[in-house]
Amino acid sequence: MTHSPVDIAEKLSLFSEPWSPKTVARLNEYEIKVVKLKGEFTWHTHQDTDELFLVTKGQLTIQMHEGNVTLEPGQLFVVPRGIEHCPVTDGEVHAVLIEPIGVVNTGDVGGPLTAAPDDSLA
Amino acid sequence: MTHSPVDIAEKLSLFSEPWSPKTVARLNEYEIKVVKLKGEFTWHTHQDTDELFLVTKGQLTIQMHEGNVTLEPGQLFVVPRGIEHCPVTDGEVHAVLIEPIGVVNTGDVGGPLTAAPDDSLA
Repeated sequence: MTHSPVDIAEKLSLFSEPWSPKTVARLNEYEIKVVKLKGEFTWHTHQDTDELFLVTKGQLTIQMHEGNVTLEPGQLFVVPRGIEHCPVTDGEVHAVLIEPIGVVNTGDVGGPLTAAPDDSLA
Repeated sequence: MTHSPVDIAEKLSLFSEPWSPKTVARLNEYEIKVVKLKGEFTWHTHQDTDELFLVTKGQLTIQMHEGNVTLEPGQLFVVPRGIEHCPVTDGEVHAVLIEPIGVVNTGDVGGPLTAAPDDSLA
């Protein structure tokens, strides 16, 4: 085990590309990831899992057909499994994502924004 | 589903007692809790699960026989399952805990600091 705290802002300072979640820690069968978000993502669904967003910088709106949720720093939201959603930002957003190991960022739709797993910062 | 963000600081403003985690959201079979910590807790172990601490205010040291970890705001640490640990603070600390539903705060030792499940803020 690594006996070091994970500094969220420091991890986010180590890369710049948006929509590329980086795993920074594991919690049982879950991954704690940091991610930069900028602009609009793609509508997608995770059929088998909820997904937690915790914003640490900027303003993030999670668009959903049931109604949008806008997150400021220090606020979190769990997108329930099966709910189609599409993140969109006002400028650059920094966030923590928590979801089971192996969840793909674009869920069921794939496409060019699909990110490969990246645990280089773990 | 509740279409509202969870504001971590706002939830923490709603109670004062230390060592009493409050569930504020669920992520599949996990609970997201907020907690105030003050002073020294009790040495205990969670044999079956890792436990995530994310500090949002104050300074928290997680004492472990393998070496201590000190967390500042914006830093997180995952205590691995089976590792005996004892949180101790410098003043009052605010933190987010993430662990499976049903995990007891005092783990295997019980005692007077054992908190009942509390989802009144969820």
